[in-house]
Amino acid sequence: MLTHSPYEPLDADSLVDRLGALPAMMERVGPAAHWRVREVGDGNLNLVFIVEGRAGSAVVKQALPYARVVGESWPMSLDRSFFEHEALLRLDSRDPGRLPAIYHFDRHQAIQVMEHLWPHVILRKGLMAGERFPLMAGQLGRYLARTLFRGSDWAMDTTRRKADLAVFAGNVELCGITEDLFFTDPFHECARNSHNPALDHAVAAIRADRDLKLAALELKARFCGTAQTLLHGDLHTGSIMVCQEDTRVIDAEFATYGPMGFDIGSLLANLWMAVFAQPGLRPDDGETRAYRRWILDTAETIWNVFVEEFTRLWRCERNGILGGRELFEDQADPVGGELALNAMIDGIWHDAVGFSGIEIHRRILGLAHIPEFESITDAALRAGCEHRALRAGRVLAVERGRFATIGQVRTLIARLEGDDL
Amino acid sequence: MLTHSPYEPLDADSLVDRLGALPAMMERVGPAAHWRVREVGDGNLNLVFIVEGRAGSAVVKQALPYARVVGESWPMSLDRSFFEHEALLRLDSRDPGRLPAIYHFDRHQAIQVMEHLWPHVILRKGLMAGERFPLMAGQLGRYLARTLFRGSDWAMDTTRRKADLAVFAGNVELCGITEDLFFTDPFHECARNSHNPALDHAVAAIRADRDLKLAALELKARFCGTAQTLLHGDLHTGSIMVCQEDTRVIDAEFATYGPMGFDIGSLLANLWMAVFAQPGLRPDDGETRAYRRWILDTAETIWNVFVEEFTRLWRCERNGILGGRELFEDQADPVGGELALNAMIDGIWHDAVGFSGIEIHRRILGLAHIPEFESITDAALRAGCEHRALRAGRVLAVERGRFATIGQVRTLIARLEGDDL
Repeated sequence: MLTHSPYEPLDADSLVDRLGALPAMMERVGPAAHWRVREVGDGNLNLVFIVEGRAGSAVVKQALPYARVVGESWPMSLDRSFFEHEALLRLDSRDPGRLPAIYHFDRHQAIQVMEHLWPHVILRKGLMAGERFPLMAGQLGRYLARTLFRGSDWAMDTTRRKADLAVFAGNVELCGITEDLFFTDPFHECARNSHNPALDHAVAAIRADRDLKLAALELKARFCGTAQTLLHGDLHTGSIMVCQEDTRVIDAEFATYGPMGFDIGSLLANLWMAVFAQPGLRPDDGETRAYRRWILDTAETIWNVFVEEFTRLWRCERNGILGGRELFEDQADPVGGELALNAMIDGIWHDAVGFSGIEIHRRILGLAHIPEFESITDAALRAGCEHRALRAGRVLAVERGRFATIGQVRTLIARLEGDDL
Repeated sequence: MLTHSPYEPLDADSLVDRLGALPAMMERVGPAAHWRVREVGDGNLNLVFIVEGRAGSAVVKQALPYARVVGESWPMSLDRSFFEHEALLRLDSRDPGRLPAIYHFDRHQAIQVMEHLWPHVILRKGLMAGERFPLMAGQLGRYLARTLFRGSDWAMDTTRRKADLAVFAGNVELCGITEDLFFTDPFHECARNSHNPALDHAVAAIRADRDLKLAALELKARFCGTAQTLLHGDLHTGSIMVCQEDTRVIDAEFATYGPMGFDIGSLLANLWMAVFAQPGLRPDDGETRAYRRWILDTAETIWNVFVEEFTRLWRCERNGILGGRELFEDQADPVGGELALNAMIDGIWHDAVGFSGIEIHRRILGLAHIPEFESITDAALRAGCEHRALRAGRVLAVERGRFATIGQVRTLIARLEGDDL
């Protein structure tokens, strides 16, 4: 039996032998004799295969016992596959159809067999290629509102919510990566870091910037000490697959209870970095400026749809222990309920702005960089893009209380870009 | 064997039969033939016996499967005895000697055998009797700093901290009591509530006070969604036993991860309520005024010693994943570390002020009242004391951001009392 063999990483050949008799694979892909297997993983932690056959196709994802980006010198528990699977089930139940369907899970081998998303592309690659996805912003805004609201004490049965909190408290290894890699490493010299040498002066200034480091530490404390809802925990543009009609969220292994603004800030930061990268990726012409406007519009729509859907859920599904209906709506004071909502959204927004500023720093100064910047071969051009992004990130982290609207972030970016965006 | 019999509540007779052969009892109390057993429980949830014998004495505490204050109509899980025991072990390790020693624990019978504290009295009774305890403020200030800091991500190993978070997430039943009984019930009509009928008008105004209810809901969200440290969770003056030389913290069954300010605010609120109750408890003379000043001094000293000890721990024991040393001290910027401390203390303080305002409301309008007010037989005199306390509580909850120092709270109380305190 598969589950009784010792853990062994798959490769394209052994996959056919090992999974060929699996009912889920036979049903979705067809007989193993006709499988074509491609390894497509470009993430940091896992093996990912696409398996195609006569009946269809599936994705096989297997966790490695070390961080692939660093190598075998950084061992990592295979349990993250369990947490990813648990998170997928919950997030999918909160916004059905927005995550890949799971066909099979083998905890011992850390293998998930899941829906092959097609013709979806990784959003990050789509943004680098200048593609537009008309339905994405609405789908992501609703995904964020539904998963963040429905996983919180505003909506969930408190016993189930606390049981979930206990489950995901076990994902301490990946959560610890977030805690250190996001909030601490970028702000001091650390062996895991790297950056474009043309940024040396800017990086020295950042690491001497007390206000920025105070903001990073405050946001770290907020991330560690807040158990508001079940987060995806790594919701950047590489964790989203899109096509014209559909948007999917993948790679939930960093799932943890944390502040709602974290997922939102991660996503917005990666969209804003894509804007800053454009001048290094394509000609500075009207087309490129229009595309940057489209990305900024997308970020705005995600936030606005999030607020709209969160508001709807606040009014219709506020049935958890936090409640508040007894205090307001049930006493004929719906205005009180709306004011509590306003305060809630205000808190989520300022968290999101702050976390977005941290995400920008860690993607330019930390361990895990992004191809938007890394693919710009001219070091000075790249440094210009990165430096403008860092200037925005510093303001977003330190002055997060001074941004009341997402339009004001757009203005900040336009001023830094010297452009009318 | 004890642990294999079905759960059965103890009484003074059966206790001798059932625990007479227990080595921990024989060692601490002596042979069962000479035991004298008294039931002394006046709490809401448990049976408590003092057992005295030839070798000494011990306290036997047994959880009941229902809330004693309400009766058998409110069933409650016996697991709270497990959580209390787990909390006692942790809190005691963080500030050794400040909790009763545990001699024996039987999870199945929900029985703890613990140190008989003598000549200690319940602090609440001491305050009603006008007694002074010279060492208490310092001991409680240090207890708060040590338990709150050492149970947080500032100090603890993150894997152990997350494992503890998971354990105490299981204490959902008692945590849910706190969530509803503190933050929601007092602010709407609810069958579990009661209040002095002479307060009817004031209570109606409170339940129509939108700003107060918004503050209660914000503080409830902060309590539910914050996992900063392991709290005692019910640190009022009935959970503290004192004598001239020693102070002990008992009854930790409400232990949960939450915001540091919660334990502090609960304790301060109960001290401040003791001040408001004095005019109903004894003659309004110089002696009584001096005693009220002593209680206010005690509250101030608790907070000041908390800050002092928290500062010391911040500098010496900041070794958890939150750290911050890499950003400041290790880069020759100790000032940065001190500024982060200032922000941290500021946040704890404003939480504590807000939670204290909620505690005052729930003790006058909710389920669990306090004998300071209840023992005032003149309804109008009692209402006057309660009403002044409620006025303070409203300001503390709603305007918590406007109190920078504990001296300002003292001034508020003095103004409401029309007195020079």
